[in-house]
Amino acid sequence: MNPLLASDAGLAYDSAMETARTIADVRRAVAAARGAGKRIHLVPTMGALHEGHRSLLRAARADGRLVVASIFVNPTQFGPGEDFERYPRPVEADLDICGQDGVDVVFLPSVAEMYPPDGRTTVHVAGLTKRLCGAHRPGHFDGVTTVVLKLFNIVQPDAAYFGQKDGQQVAVIRRMVADLDVPTEIVVCPTVRDTDGVALSSRNAYLEPDQRRRARCLIEALRLGEAMIRDGERRPDTITRAIRARIEATGGCTIDYIEAVDLATLEPAAWIDRPCMLAGAIRIGSTRLIDNVVVDVSDGGG
Amino acid sequence: MNPLLASDAGLAYDSAMETARTIADVRRAVAAARGAGKRIHLVPTMGALHEGHRSLLRAARADGRLVVASIFVNPTQFGPGEDFERYPRPVEADLDICGQDGVDVVFLPSVAEMYPPDGRTTVHVAGLTKRLCGAHRPGHFDGVTTVVLKLFNIVQPDAAYFGQKDGQQVAVIRRMVADLDVPTEIVVCPTVRDTDGVALSSRNAYLEPDQRRRARCLIEALRLGEAMIRDGERRPDTITRAIRARIEATGGCTIDYIEAVDLATLEPAAWIDRPCMLAGAIRIGSTRLIDNVVVDVSDGGG
Repeated sequence: MNPLLASDAGLAYDSAMETARTIADVRRAVAAARGAGKRIHLVPTMGALHEGHRSLLRAARADGRLVVASIFVNPTQFGPGEDFERYPRPVEADLDICGQDGVDVVFLPSVAEMYPPDGRTTVHVAGLTKRLCGAHRPGHFDGVTTVVLKLFNIVQPDAAYFGQKDGQQVAVIRRMVADLDVPTEIVVCPTVRDTDGVALSSRNAYLEPDQRRRARCLIEALRLGEAMIRDGERRPDTITRAIRARIEATGGCTIDYIEAVDLATLEPAAWIDRPCMLAGAIRIGSTRLIDNVVVDVSDGGG
Repeated sequence: MNPLLASDAGLAYDSAMETARTIADVRRAVAAARGAGKRIHLVPTMGALHEGHRSLLRAARADGRLVVASIFVNPTQFGPGEDFERYPRPVEADLDICGQDGVDVVFLPSVAEMYPPDGRTTVHVAGLTKRLCGAHRPGHFDGVTTVVLKLFNIVQPDAAYFGQKDGQQVAVIRRMVADLDVPTEIVVCPTVRDTDGVALSSRNAYLEPDQRRRARCLIEALRLGEAMIRDGERRPDTITRAIRARIEATGGCTIDYIEAVDLATLEPAAWIDRPCMLAGAIRIGSTRLIDNVVVDVSDGGG
C-alpha cells in the first residue's frame, strides 16, 4: 500500500467522502461540484475493488476534479447461469478503499434505482460485440453499454476511467461514445497484474490455490504470442495456435477463445500489420478468466 | 403570421442567428451560452418547417434561453422504398422561419457529419416500437431514438420540444429518456391543424388537391371516436371499427392501422379507462399520413 494513503491526508479524503444511493443524490453532489468549476471524473465499477480499480481511482484524482466511483453489480450484463448471485459484494471494504483513494462521491444504487420495472431501452453496438466474449456471453455487451450510458447520463462526467484488462469492453465503449456523440473522454489505464503476471480480477477470488497457479498460463501464453510478433511472426493463425498449445499444456483449463484482433474494430487480424490485441478467455472449473496484450508492430516489433 | 414577428424585434432575432454545420461548431455555440448562464432548449426537426414546427420554436423561446433548432433529414429513420430522397428540403425558407421565430442557433449537419462510416451503435426501445407505425416501418424508431440521443448528446439541452402529432414518437422518446436517465426535459406541444382539421405535416406537400380533400377523413374519423368515448363508449373495438368505417366511407385511402392504445405504454387498450390515444395512419396514393387524438376519460368523458 502507498504509505501516503495512510497519512492524515488519506484520512482527510475519507472523512469528506459522500455516499449517494439515489440518482437524485449523486446528481445533486455533481451539480454542486460543477457549479464550483470542477471537472467530473467517473470510475464505473462493480465493486470488489482491487489494485486494478485503485489504479483507475488514482488516475482519476487530480486538483480541481470531483471523483465519482460507482459501485453497481449490473444484473443485465450477466447471462442466465452466470455468477450474478455469487459475485462478491464487500461493500464496507470497498467504501474504505474509495476513502483511501480520494474518491469524493461513491454512487451505490440499488437494482431497483437503476432499473425501474417498465424499462425497455437498450444500447447496442453491432459487430464488435459479436466476437470474443460476446460470442460466449450473449447480451453481455448490451448490458454493459446500456448501464455505462445510464451512468454517463446520471453523472455527466468529463472523463471516465476503464481498465485495459477488459479490452473488448474498452473497444465497445469507445465505439458507443463516438457513435452517440457522448461528451465524455474515455481514459484507459493499463492492466494491473499480480507478481506472477495474472491480471487482477474480482473473479480471481473464486479460484482454489491449485486453480490460481494454473491461471498463470493465460498471460504466459499471451506473452508468448507477443514475443513471436516481436520476433517477426505476422501470421495470426500461427500465433494463436502457439498460444492455445501453451494453455493446453498446462491442463485443467478450457479455452473459450484465443484471437488476434484489430484493436479498434475487433475484427480478426488477417496479418499482423497494425495495432492488435491478443485476447483470450479460459475457464478453470466454473471460473471464467479473461486477459489480453496489446501489440503495436509499428513501435519496434520487427 | 404573427405581426410581432415581422417587427424590428423579429429582425433582431434574425440577424443574430448562427448556422452551425458541424458538431464542433454547435457545441461551441452552446458552451458559450451555457457559460453565460443560459438554459439550452432544443427543437429537433427534419426541416420543411410549417406552423407545427413554429409552435415548437415559439414554445422553446423565452428570456435566458438559447434556442437551438436542428434541421436534419435523418436517413436511418426511413426504410427502403420510403420517401427519404424526395422528402422536401427547402433550406433557405427554413432558415428564414428560424430567424423569424427567434432561433439562436440552427444546427444543419450533413449526413456524413452525423454518421461517420464506421458507426455501429443503435438505441432500441422494445415493445413500444413494435406496434402502430413501428409495425409498418421496421427500424424506423431505432433510427429516431438513435438520432435524437445523438442530438441530445451534441447539444445537451435542458429541454427538448416535440409535437404530439407524432404521438408514438413522443411515447418512445419519453421512454428512452426515462430508461437511459437522459437529463433533458421532454416538452410536448399540441398538434397544429389546418382550418379543416388536417394535422400539419411536411408530407401534406405531396398531396394533389383531391387527395388533400380526402385527407380530412383521418382527423374526422378520430374525432368521431373521441366523441364516442365522451358519450360513454368504453369498448376499443367498437370505437376503432367506427373510425375505420368513417375512413372507408371516404374512399381513396388505405388504412395502415387504427388503434386505441394506452398513452404511455402504447399497448392496445382492453377498455377505455385511462388516458389513451386514438391513433391512425392512412395512405393516400403514395403519401402516408398519421394523426392521433388523446382522450382522458378522467377529465369528464362519461
